[in-house]
Amino acid sequence: MQYRRLGSSGLQLSALSLGAWVTFGSQIGRSEARELVATAWDHGVNFFDNAEGYANGAAEQVMGDVIADLRLPRDGYCVSSKVFFGAAADRRPTQRGLSRKHVRDACDAALKRLRVEHLDLYFCHRPDPDTPVAETVWAMDTLIRQGKVLYWGTSEWPATLIREAAQIARTHHLHGPTMEQPEYNLLKRARVELEYAPLYAELGLGTTVWSPLASGLLTGKYTGGVPADSRLAQPELAWLKRSVLGDDGDRLTRAGRFVALAAELGVAPAPLAIAWCLTNPHVSTVLLGASRTAQLIENLQAIELLDRLDEATWRRLEAATSA
Amino acid sequence: MQYRRLGSSGLQLSALSLGAWVTFGSQIGRSEARELVATAWDHGVNFFDNAEGYANGAAEQVMGDVIADLRLPRDGYCVSSKVFFGAAADRRPTQRGLSRKHVRDACDAALKRLRVEHLDLYFCHRPDPDTPVAETVWAMDTLIRQGKVLYWGTSEWPATLIREAAQIARTHHLHGPTMEQPEYNLLKRARVELEYAPLYAELGLGTTVWSPLASGLLTGKYTGGVPADSRLAQPELAWLKRSVLGDDGDRLTRAGRFVALAAELGVAPAPLAIAWCLTNPHVSTVLLGASRTAQLIENLQAIELLDRLDEATWRRLEAATSA
Amino acid sequence: MQYRRLGSSGLQLSALSLGAWVTFGSQIGRSEARELVATAWDHGVNFFDNAEGYANGAAEQVMGDVIADLRLPRDGYCVSSKVFFGAAADRRPTQRGLSRKHVRDACDAALKRLRVEHLDLYFCHRPDPDTPVAETVWAMDTLIRQGKVLYWGTSEWPATLIREAAQIARTHHLHGPTMEQPEYNLLKRARVELEYAPLYAELGLGTTVWSPLASGLLTGKYTGGVPADSRLAQPELAWLKRSVLGDDGDRLTRAGRFVALAAELGVAPAPLAIAWCLTNPHVSTVLLGASRTAQLIENLQAIELLDRLDEATWRRLEAATSA
Amino acid sequence: MQYRRLGSSGLQLSALSLGAWVTFGSQIGRSEARELVATAWDHGVNFFDNAEGYANGAAEQVMGDVIADLRLPRDGYCVSSKVFFGAAADRRPTQRGLSRKHVRDACDAALKRLRVEHLDLYFCHRPDPDTPVAETVWAMDTLIRQGKVLYWGTSEWPATLIREAAQIARTHHLHGPTMEQPEYNLLKRARVELEYAPLYAELGLGTTVWSPLASGLLTGKYTGGVPADSRLAQPELAWLKRSVLGDDGDRLTRAGRFVALAAELGVAPAPLAIAWCLTNPHVSTVLLGASRTAQLIENLQAIELLDRLDEATWRRLEAATSA
Repeated sequence: MQYRRLGSSGLQLSALSLGAWVTFGSQIGRSEARELVATAWDHGVNFFDNAEGYANGAAEQVMGDVIADLRLPRDGYCVSSKVFFGAAADRRPTQRGLSRKHVRDACDAALKRLRVEHLDLYFCHRPDPDTPVAETVWAMDTLIRQGKVLYWGTSEWPATLIREAAQIARTHHLHGPTMEQPEYNLLKRARVELEYAPLYAELGLGTTVWSPLASGLLTGKYTGGVPADSRLAQPELAWLKRSVLGDDGDRLTRAGRFVALAAELGVAPAPLAIAWCLTNPHVSTVLLGASRTAQLIENLQAIELLDRLDEATWRRLEAATSA
Repeated sequence: MQYRRLGSSGLQLSALSLGAWVTFGSQIGRSEARELVATAWDHGVNFFDNAEGYANGAAEQVMGDVIADLRLPRDGYCVSSKVFFGAAADRRPTQRGLSRKHVRDACDAALKRLRVEHLDLYFCHRPDPDTPVAETVWAMDTLIRQGKVLYWGTSEWPATLIREAAQIARTHHLHGPTMEQPEYNLLKRARVELEYAPLYAELGLGTTVWSPLASGLLTGKYTGGVPADSRLAQPELAWLKRSVLGDDGDRLTRAGRFVALAAELGVAPAPLAIAWCLTNPHVSTVLLGASRTAQLIENLQAIELLDRLDEATWRRLEAATSA
Repeated sequence: MQYRRLGSSGLQLSALSLGAWVTFGSQIGRSEARELVATAWDHGVNFFDNAEGYANGAAEQVMGDVIADLRLPRDGYCVSSKVFFGAAADRRPTQRGLSRKHVRDACDAALKRLRVEHLDLYFCHRPDPDTPVAETVWAMDTLIRQGKVLYWGTSEWPATLIREAAQIARTHHLHGPTMEQPEYNLLKRARVELEYAPLYAELGLGTTVWSPLASGLLTGKYTGGVPADSRLAQPELAWLKRSVLGDDGDRLTRAGRFVALAAELGVAPAPLAIAWCLTNPHVSTVLLGASRTAQLIENLQAIELLDRLDEATWRRLEAATSA
Repeated sequence: MQYRRLGSSGLQLSALSLGAWVTFGSQIGRSEARELVATAWDHGVNFFDNAEGYANGAAEQVMGDVIADLRLPRDGYCVSSKVFFGAAADRRPTQRGLSRKHVRDACDAALKRLRVEHLDLYFCHRPDPDTPVAETVWAMDTLIRQGKVLYWGTSEWPATLIREAAQIARTHHLHGPTMEQPEYNLLKRARVELEYAPLYAELGLGTTVWSPLASGLLTGKYTGGVPADSRLAQPELAWLKRSVLGDDGDRLTRAGRFVALAAELGVAPAPLAIAWCLTNPHVSTVLLGASRTAQLIENLQAIELLDRLDEATWRRLEAATSA
């Protein structure tokens, strides 16, 4: 495994990490989860990513159980949670958003579900237009001073809001944001490469990127078109299909070119797509989601690919997938 | 129910909330209190207002028992307390005022009576001329950093003192006041609409207003004059009569015009008066006091009236009740 | 009892308070101590003064036992301790001075002996030339933020050091000193009346003065000269005699004039001397030391004298005792 | 024993103190350790120095056991730990360096091993180029505010980094570094005497120096050359030999001159070399390492030598050992 600093911070995360999203607490059972965490840990993964919104808290519960069960050393791994994800119709008004109340309540609840005394990373899952950035920055700082959180950050925040948060922290001598969790893959590069560009030097921002496979598109599973019996083919999921494939199907074409090139290179497309993310030095870690151990092991091979392939190959991949 | 931000803060309170004042711990028993809280909660109320001075602490004790008994989710509701209300002859000198000692002792005592680990809102019940504003601001900030309080505010403070508190907080990097709890109703509008006007934008001040019915005057219960057998008719309560009715009986006349107009509109006067308060966007929540469940349910209808009536009607109510 | 603010702070102390110095833990037993505290409390005294140095900790232990035994309400009284008093030959180097270590260790030890969770007042008993003022200010601020102390102050510090402490606090947004505990009586007026004069307005400094009877001189017990069998007559206590009487015996003469004037006024000298201290509005409270209940009760009469005598009388007392 | 302030701080350390390095938890057993600590304490030593890296934590465990066993009064002695020492191949990435995570985890682990509730001194064992100085300063300040640490400092940091840390602390109102732990002896003087020179006045920096005997060179044990059967003679320890003796053997020659001079003065070389360190007023304490009690007792005689020898003698020693 390779380890990287979380931005300019001193925290060293494994370049590949394991996310509980979609799988833990829903798609997979407790024993599969245990095997995934054990496999990741044995391969050197030291960061396990969660959110209060994943499976409505069940993801954290499973993750917490499994980590406790495996007796991983608390100072050897990092665990995260995230507070607030857009409107959740079934949640009461005080149980969403980035207010001081919810930031605190969500942290306490995550600590309990994860069965730890502090979160290593704590993210604002999305910006909350109904809470001043200052309120959230102060609330995060309080959690750090109380020892409940070590590093706080954001997920999918516009650069301008991240900068505002950092500015407030500086003015009032508070702990500012350390990292962002953006989507990043060969089909979605702008935010990480352009929008956040000034923040790396300015704030020392780290990134824990998600969706390296573009929702599976880069594995080639939709290369022959969307199968009639697949989830995306259902009329009522047209919105999801649009989001994954793009309105014009252009993303599908680009993904097809990527898969073809992978075949030409003689490597599996998934680890190749993941390895490419790591060629960006501003990526601190790439989050892997997996429902099967074999799939996780294949994806972890990205580390070897990173060393094996050369600069020219990475540029070819970028050219092939450009819009 | 409608939910509103507490000023510019991220906290979302129900537009109508339940106050323990006068009723809890004195006028009504524990089972009536239980029914009132349950009813309010079922209608979407998420803020329960208290003070150390209400029934000398008994209000908080009953409220705490009832909330625990109903097993309301701690992150789903907000509970408040208030420290200090003028001179209490039977209290020792260190047990009143806004000194660091009393702010802290009163908070600890309220937490115990309410059976919670933190207060969501904590108010300075009145200004204390014998304590520097700075001492109180620092004391409140310390409680927030210790996790005992989430938001602090004031009640019936002149705008100039609120601004002073905010200024001290800014200078020393402390948590400033978030809200005020002023009296507000059709017969008493100046403080909320004029005196505090600059503070809404300047500080993002929220308001949790009390006495929307002007001590019952706007329900029409004194429309035919003060009944000879009523409390207000007793000679020794002349001072209370003056305060409620105004020295010249003018408030009674204005209330009478309001009740007549309500009848003309075909709506009950109480929810109408409450709904009018909510037409002011700077009102974060209106505190309801009720001793009977039926009365509470009627008052909660203000939310529907707010949607049903139009701008012109609200203006007619204001014209009818103006001095 | 009369109550006064501790300087410009919001804390209201009884104008007369009870000190453990000399008596508690040494001169008197536990049952006498209990009677003294009970009597003081019944007369409205709400401040009980201690120091780690009094009877080497035993004073605090007795005071703590007695207060617990009497079940005084924690929010109704104030208790203090003091850290460091010059060199104590029998103490190890880390157990004296105003270093961060000793300030903290001494506080923890005092809390334990006094059986309370926080000290209301915590004093630096003397200046420590071997510790930077800044280190002590930061240490005191930390204790306040941790909830172990409410107000901190100094005892017998030169004005210039008190001002330095306040300046450091302002610059670094820390809690500054609230009060001083100086000696003050008709024979020793300069420090309180002249040296500290600018600090009352500038810092809102309060004072908790000690030795209102000038070590007993103003009770008249040495009026007829120092009795041959008294403590002060012993050759090896010549230094104490000098300190109490002054090198030239002038203090004895002045005290004699005071006692004569008290007789002329028909009042006991002790409460008269105490009452005079209270004519100074910058005195927040006068510490009484007593070994017998009768003596304490006599001294508590100072409050009545304060109202009964007129301005001219106080001026006569000052003239009679001036050097 | 003599006591000295830790730089300009108020903490008084014994001029000679006991370090666990090399010996505790490895070279010596628990009963020898107990005798060493007891002997040091009886001679007035009040500072016991440790690091997470000494014997991989075992040094702290033994030290903690022994101190608890001897029932030393917690406010009478100081105990330290140090976080991070270069790369430790067998430690996971989050378990080394000066990140907020490791600073905190290492402190918690040291507290547990040492069986205390706070560390009196906590050092950054080496600079960490992979963590911003600011992150470490904030992390140390948080530990002090939480009461887990009293004073923090550095070990073998370049002056420029110490100054940077102090500057960050000043700007953000945090606790800055109080002390440095550099190597210092007659053969290695530059850092303490030249590089840190401006920091003593500027920051009030204290020093807790190690290796007063230059790894044993100044005891004369290598005067006759490196014995063939000694550790340094082994080919695979050539690097250690180089480091101790210097590439050119010059250090051995200088040490030989020192030992000869000691013989001429009629004093044992070890306490003489230690005493010389104490002639520098910027040395707060000299750390002694010992595996036998007799050796410790001999070294403790340095205090007497310090008084006995005169200025001219110290200058002769310096001349004799200069390069």
